[in-house]
Amino acid sequence: MRVGIVGLGLIGGSLGLALRAKGFEVFGVSRQPSTCATAIAKGAADQASTNLTLLAETDIIFVCTPIAVIAPTIKQLIPHLKAKTVITDVGSVKQSIVQDCSLLWHNFVGSHPMAGTEASGIAAAKADLFTATPYVITPTADTPNSAIEKVKQIARSLNTKIYTCTPAEHDQAVAFISHLPVMLSGSLIQTCLAETNPKIVKLAKKLASSGFRDTSRVGGGNPELGLMMAKYNRPALLRSLSLYRHNLEKITQYIEQADWESLSETLATNQAKRSEFID
Amino acid sequence: MRVGIVGLGLIGGSLGLALRAKGFEVFGVSRQPSTCATAIAKGAADQASTNLTLLAETDIIFVCTPIAVIAPTIKQLIPHLKAKTVITDVGSVKQSIVQDCSLLWHNFVGSHPMAGTEASGIAAAKADLFTATPYVITPTADTPNSAIEKVKQIARSLNTKIYTCTPAEHDQAVAFISHLPVMLSGSLIQTCLAETNPKIVKLAKKLASSGFRDTSRVGGGNPELGLMMAKYNRPALLRSLSLYRHNLEKITQYIEQADWESLSETLATNQAKRSEFID
Repeated sequence: MRVGIVGLGLIGGSLGLALRAKGFEVFGVSRQPSTCATAIAKGAADQASTNLTLLAETDIIFVCTPIAVIAPTIKQLIPHLKAKTVITDVGSVKQSIVQDCSLLWHNFVGSHPMAGTEASGIAAAKADLFTATPYVITPTADTPNSAIEKVKQIARSLNTKIYTCTPAEHDQAVAFISHLPVMLSGSLIQTCLAETNPKIVKLAKKLASSGFRDTSRVGGGNPELGLMMAKYNRPALLRSLSLYRHNLEKITQYIEQADWESLSETLATNQAKRSEFID
Repeated sequence: MRVGIVGLGLIGGSLGLALRAKGFEVFGVSRQPSTCATAIAKGAADQASTNLTLLAETDIIFVCTPIAVIAPTIKQLIPHLKAKTVITDVGSVKQSIVQDCSLLWHNFVGSHPMAGTEASGIAAAKADLFTATPYVITPTADTPNSAIEKVKQIARSLNTKIYTCTPAEHDQAVAFISHLPVMLSGSLIQTCLAETNPKIVKLAKKLASSGFRDTSRVGGGNPELGLMMAKYNRPALLRSLSLYRHNLEKITQYIEQADWESLSETLATNQAKRSEFID
């Protein structure tokens, strides 16, 4: 199978490395000639170019660009493709992308390989990035089965854990476990900074330890990623924030009313149920 | 100096190990005879007993019991002590404890060595538990200087970082960096469980990764600790929760109103400022 990859960053580059190791022929496209050269040198692509025509003869194309550029990229690709070519993406939100791109290309399959590191760019790419990570495929009722199967075949070859769900289910699930944590974790940092007594802020900075470090980590992450989550997963994120506020108010009321029994039960449930989310 | 320790758990046991290594003579008291035996066997005490009279001749006594038992323990100790004996505690909240115990004993110094592990009990005790951790001393205007100096001398011998502040400053600072995180992190777990679509809950459990793991960690911790924070640091925790809700509402409004510039600024501030709390 000939595989095309548009966007040779951490995800695109790692995909190239992994798939070439599995015997696929990989054609990479990047806007930067230097990235193309690095991809070839690193072994992340057999051929690389700044020109989308390189992908004319591929069987499946992974669009690994930033979310905002996925649909525009597919528009530019279309004139060069055979009708049976499958296009898939790796975007971290699915509803808006799948809606737009399914209209552009009938053989489009939305997907979200949930792998990553703190680093970005092709320099950080590695062949085992996807091993044992979730690979979420989000077809619609109209997505051709043959296209879904082609994406699954590649996801299997990457040794990922494949999940299939609707774009809406994906977006709500990742809102809960990924996008909501960024907002509530960031609000913790804001709250500590909002204290008006400078002696307390200074002391808080000195005393902050592993609890603060872990709880504030994703809130202190890359602002562009947080912005992207809010922009492209707005309805599911707002729904999560609303549910979250309700739960926070409940716990606040227990403390206000000294309802230690209810607080105790809630904390015990949290301890018991957390393990169901954490392997 | 002869040091007394009441309560030979993780903190009391580690204190005994560390101070004996520094040449202090350590007298330990536990309610459990088996804990006394373990303390002697482990080298956490020179002498150990279930009877508080063992501490009659000590120069300084560390009360390392659960918070609720600190003042009652001091009441029981008083009949056995010389007037110049210093009493200090290791409780993780200070206002209520310092208020009560200062009335009971003029030579009382509130303190909070901020060390710990996931484990508890004397089995987990270790001599270097306090090395390079904060040791917060919270005297009042009436605390004798000689008593403060005695506690500082021991805190220095443990190689801790000593901070001095009022009980109220301590309680607000730890509310921000330790107690608030437990409540907001726990509310994240509650929120994911509150989703009524079982397919989304199941998917969220499968997709949850390092972001969810870190943000939910302290919320899924020991329920008794969380309850203790709420009970004994209620005013400062409620103030933190109120400030937090305000900041969460602000970030929610930015998303509702698609005010990406304000959201972006907030996320960038969070990223820039977090490092001031994390070494």
